[in-house]
Amino acid sequence: MPVELIFTLAASLVGIAFAVFLIWKIKNELTGEGKMIEIAQYIREGAIAFLKRQYKTIGIIAAGLALLLLAIYGLTGNWLYGFQVSTAFVFGAACSLLAGFIGMRVAVITNVRTAKAAQTSFSRALTIALRGGAVSGIIIVAMSLVGISGLYFIYTLFGYQAISIPSLIVGFGFGASLVALFAQLGGGIYTKAADVGADLVGKIETGIPEDDPRNPAVIADLVGDNVGDCAGRGADLFESTAAENIGAMILGIVLYPHFGISGILFPLVARAFGLLSSIIGVLAVRPKDTDEPMKALNRGYLVTSFLAAVSFYFVTMEMLGSVWFFYAGLVGILTSIAFVYITQYYTQEKYRPVKEIVRSSATGHATNVIAGFSIGLECTAATVATISTALIAAFKLGEASGFAGGGLYGTAAATMGMLATAAYILAMDAFGPITDNAGGIIEMSGGDEKTRKITDKLDAAGNTTKALTKGYAMGSAALAAFLLFSAYLEEVKLKIVDLAKVEVFIGAFIGAMLIFLFSAFALRAVSRAASYIIEEVRRQFRENAGIMAGTNKPDYSKCVDITTKGALKEMILPGMLAVIIPVGTGLVLGAEATAGLLMIGTIVGVLLATVMNNAGGAWDNAKKFIEAGNFGGKGSPAHKAAVTGDTVGDPFKDTAGPSLHVLVKLLGTLTLALAALFV
Amino acid sequence: MPVELIFTLAASLVGIAFAVFLIWKIKNELTGEGKMIEIAQYIREGAIAFLKRQYKTIGIIAAGLALLLLAIYGLTGNWLYGFQVSTAFVFGAACSLLAGFIGMRVAVITNVRTAKAAQTSFSRALTIALRGGAVSGIIIVAMSLVGISGLYFIYTLFGYQAISIPSLIVGFGFGASLVALFAQLGGGIYTKAADVGADLVGKIETGIPEDDPRNPAVIADLVGDNVGDCAGRGADLFESTAAENIGAMILGIVLYPHFGISGILFPLVARAFGLLSSIIGVLAVRPKDTDEPMKALNRGYLVTSFLAAVSFYFVTMEMLGSVWFFYAGLVGILTSIAFVYITQYYTQEKYRPVKEIVRSSATGHATNVIAGFSIGLECTAATVATISTALIAAFKLGEASGFAGGGLYGTAAATMGMLATAAYILAMDAFGPITDNAGGIIEMSGGDEKTRKITDKLDAAGNTTKALTKGYAMGSAALAAFLLFSAYLEEVKLKIVDLAKVEVFIGAFIGAMLIFLFSAFALRAVSRAASYIIEEVRRQFRENAGIMAGTNKPDYSKCVDITTKGALKEMILPGMLAVIIPVGTGLVLGAEATAGLLMIGTIVGVLLATVMNNAGGAWDNAKKFIEAGNFGGKGSPAHKAAVTGDTVGDPFKDTAGPSLHVLVKLLGTLTLALAALFV
Repeated sequence: MPVELIFTLAASLVGIAFAVFLIWKIKNELTGEGKMIEIAQYIREGAIAFLKRQYKTIGIIAAGLALLLLAIYGLTGNWLYGFQVSTAFVFGAACSLLAGFIGMRVAVITNVRTAKAAQTSFSRALTIALRGGAVSGIIIVAMSLVGISGLYFIYTLFGYQAISIPSLIVGFGFGASLVALFAQLGGGIYTKAADVGADLVGKIETGIPEDDPRNPAVIADLVGDNVGDCAGRGADLFESTAAENIGAMILGIVLYPHFGISGILFPLVARAFGLLSSIIGVLAVRPKDTDEPMKALNRGYLVTSFLAAVSFYFVTMEMLGSVWFFYAGLVGILTSIAFVYITQYYTQEKYRPVKEIVRSSATGHATNVIAGFSIGLECTAATVATISTALIAAFKLGEASGFAGGGLYGTAAATMGMLATAAYILAMDAFGPITDNAGGIIEMSGGDEKTRKITDKLDAAGNTTKALTKGYAMGSAALAAFLLFSAYLEEVKLKIVDLAKVEVFIGAFIGAMLIFLFSAFALRAVSRAASYIIEEVRRQFRENAGIMAGTNKPDYSKCVDITTKGALKEMILPGMLAVIIPVGTGLVLGAEATAGLLMIGTIVGVLLATVMNNAGGAWDNAKKFIEAGNFGGKGSPAHKAAVTGDTVGDPFKDTAGPSLHVLVKLLGTLTLALAALFV
Repeated sequence: MPVELIFTLAASLVGIAFAVFLIWKIKNELTGEGKMIEIAQYIREGAIAFLKRQYKTIGIIAAGLALLLLAIYGLTGNWLYGFQVSTAFVFGAACSLLAGFIGMRVAVITNVRTAKAAQTSFSRALTIALRGGAVSGIIIVAMSLVGISGLYFIYTLFGYQAISIPSLIVGFGFGASLVALFAQLGGGIYTKAADVGADLVGKIETGIPEDDPRNPAVIADLVGDNVGDCAGRGADLFESTAAENIGAMILGIVLYPHFGISGILFPLVARAFGLLSSIIGVLAVRPKDTDEPMKALNRGYLVTSFLAAVSFYFVTMEMLGSVWFFYAGLVGILTSIAFVYITQYYTQEKYRPVKEIVRSSATGHATNVIAGFSIGLECTAATVATISTALIAAFKLGEASGFAGGGLYGTAAATMGMLATAAYILAMDAFGPITDNAGGIIEMSGGDEKTRKITDKLDAAGNTTKALTKGYAMGSAALAAFLLFSAYLEEVKLKIVDLAKVEVFIGAFIGAMLIFLFSAFALRAVSRAASYIIEEVRRQFRENAGIMAGTNKPDYSKCVDITTKGALKEMILPGMLAVIIPVGTGLVLGAEATAGLLMIGTIVGVLLATVMNNAGGAWDNAKKFIEAGNFGGKGSPAHKAAVTGDTVGDPFKDTAGPSLHVLVKLLGTLTLALAALFV
């Protein structure tokens, strides 16, 4: 067993042990009392119930696809490979599901403890929330490393050659992607349907405030934060770490003559060091009560980035012996920082874009919508400039190594650099729904003014970290696209993809169309699921007058149940579309056309996701800026227009946009796993 | 001089003579009296003033680019070719401007005559309006044929070889595209800025009805119909006919061994027959007073299509001697019909999509916007399915001819088939703003109920024909994309475009981004230009109380002037972007990366234009359906939500969407004209 593999497995176990330690620490915190516990209980039950049912649906789909994979490969005379691909597929799916489940269970016990701590100390509350998020982040990265290095290890036991193994485990990435797609779609539909349903009947029709306990959909709304942001994005980044590792390992095969097995295992080792850096980064967050929350969190991020960069240098020199790949890795780290800044520029109220939306809210709903949409379209320019520069730079740096195939490996190194801080970024992401929930719990249990101020501050920081993570997830998808695409070409033994061929052109057309159609269905799914909830909330208000009077309790669990069913039902169509169209194209038009679909689908997917995420974030903050008392404040015509924009932006940024990142990566892993069929 | 060229020139002259005859007939119609003449006068003056100023701006930009073209080619040692390209460029630009100017002058004398005729007879009014539109359609197609065959003729006089001439006249297409881009952008910005400005202050802030003479922006609004729909779309289709002819002629060079000069001149002859078929089609429209307007117009379309198909058969057999290219041409004709049906399905209120938007209007502004946007995204699927099928079919049919290069020529034949009916389609398109204006003139001059009913009926038909033309223009852009792309590859002598190269991938990324960024700027341009008008209308109401009382006349010309200046100022940035980005990419990353930019820009442009056109049309009709008394009718909350959607859709469907067709074709002609620089 290669020492690199031992180290990777050991680092993953350290990560898991650290996560267990964090869970133990969290469990020892105070849980609050009375109403707080009761509400937290509702959220926990709703979230777990959703996850269980969602996992059942995903399990059935995954099992069906695994059998289909086996059957297709088997019937084309390759039972062994079919078995290998489908086993890895099931394993990848299972690891992703498990990581998501653990992360969410921890989030729903951390929320109430964060709320309780907020009653006494801001710094304590921030620390607890970040630790809860860190469990998610660390478990996800560790599980993906355990899964891949474990599979690799098993194949070495069976005596397989180092260079043949990466192709055998591509199913792992596909399984992870498939779970991620449905987790993000289902969670995204759930969270926005509940949000829209709660707001539309609660805030607009009956005029009760946000998070009012009389609103029957309020618990579903709080559950939604967990299943969408926490479980959904967790699965997204689990998939990133898995798919991109495998893609980079495949490119390592090309450089086998130079690097030997080191080139194949380098991605795993680099990621293991990234995991350890993230752990130290989490420990480095020691907020004071006077701190701004983002300042404390950024400190941890900087520590993580610095340690990741330093360790990247040593790993590169040790394993590859060429400093050029370290530079390429630095490009990746810088790219992730650039994305963080782009996201901030386009979504924070102190810069031009949000100001423009705010101003156009004064002239009405339509001008607000147009302004937000055009901001979204505009920000693709910065995204493309960053990605293009990063890709060219990483490629040229890799070429400078002088090895044949070094250019491509440079892009792989850059992707590894970008993903080095993934565990810490994920920790900040899962911090978002925890603080959001903590705020909701305080609100619903009638917390005092001082506590609310603390949870509001944490909540605002959570909104920022959620937006940053989306930018990061999108950036990594974009950078990894070329990597996965190149890995696909390796697998199908294509040297070129000729756009001048009519079938490749059509493949490209279909790829772009898939992105648009998928988004259409994702948006519509939210509307449909929301309509079920709206009806239910209206029914409860109508049939039980005691709810509004505050004498009767609404039936929260009924709303949770209906949202769950609705979201799971509506996720099927867009999800299956994402699988069927590329497979159909591959079988009908062949490997080269599928390469066209993959690349153009990726390009368009990255751009449309950018539009949706950033427009959504900008609309949201434009509304918040007006609510802070500008342009007439709450209830003014400008505010009403801003609410429209925010509501349009909700399914953009929390359903369709994030699902598109996943779709882009799914296209990569799916075509990799099925490559042998298209040749 | 080849007989084919003589025939083409003769047919064009017949077309021009017919247009002159139509103008004479129109001039002999009654013009109405008093207030009608006065209003028509305002519109005419405003439209001509806009056009003059716009032409000046476009002229300066075109002259600058012509000099730049000359200089760049000259400094790279190729003065002669530089002179040839830039002369053709100036000539193409001039022909396009002239055709647009004639079409619009006729439209603004036809509107009042249509209004007058509507006082006595529906059929008379329809006939006059169609004839006014036909002048535009026929002049545009005839001028493009005269321009290309004239240039071709001149080069034969100088003794150039048949196969070398098409490359020398590529500048003509680029000149036409450049004019089209600015004409469509400027006109599109003008029309929507005026519309939004008039509605926002007039209808919403002060509560006066549409087309009320007290509204200072009402004349600007009516002028906008002419400069956006008539002049803008005219330039768009002038460019299509020019660019696609030249592209097809370049592909004809490939088949020179088989077809000789016939393969190069076939596109011109086929189009000449299409022009003659359209003339007969216009004459075949003989409405009865009891007819539905669309029924009468469709009859003419069917006659045109039938004649075009029959003549296409004879031309193909005579010139190419292979029935397979006739079949490919039929594919083109069928594709244009398919696009007409797709557009109708997605934008008419009797089908599911508009119904879905109507229903979601009941739950508010945001749900209306989301529903409309997702309908727009959805309809890309039908578009891509149609284009893919048509491309594959035309390619395979061409290949079946057995000639090397026959597949590509099959796609050229399909494009020619699709464009055969262009003159008639354009006639129907220019019919739209004429009837719209006629309605406005009747409204403002206080026409009676019966006349209004007639103009309303005509106006509704005009809305339909405008939507259909957009679908047609988009479909032809999509089909022609592959043609122009292949012509570009011929020019730069590239056999393949390898997406697996990092710079091609980046070129593709930039192509997609250009589409998004251009749309962002086009949308923002409308908002900015609208804000100038809003301020002016508010100022007039504020400073002159007599306007609202009806005792003082508002200052129409001031509004027209401000809109003109605003639109022309705001069109510069997006327009220049569309030129600078592809040129910069070509110079920095080379010919192959530019091919990637061209193809992916085209794919994404076609899709985003589809989204914008169809979503805009669907929102519009959803609003109209509610205004007809459904879901609470005018003034209900559902209506207010539907108005928001319609207002969002306005710049989508009348500014950004149509400009994107033009941009897509500009990318093709620009790269063709500059091809020699990128090698």
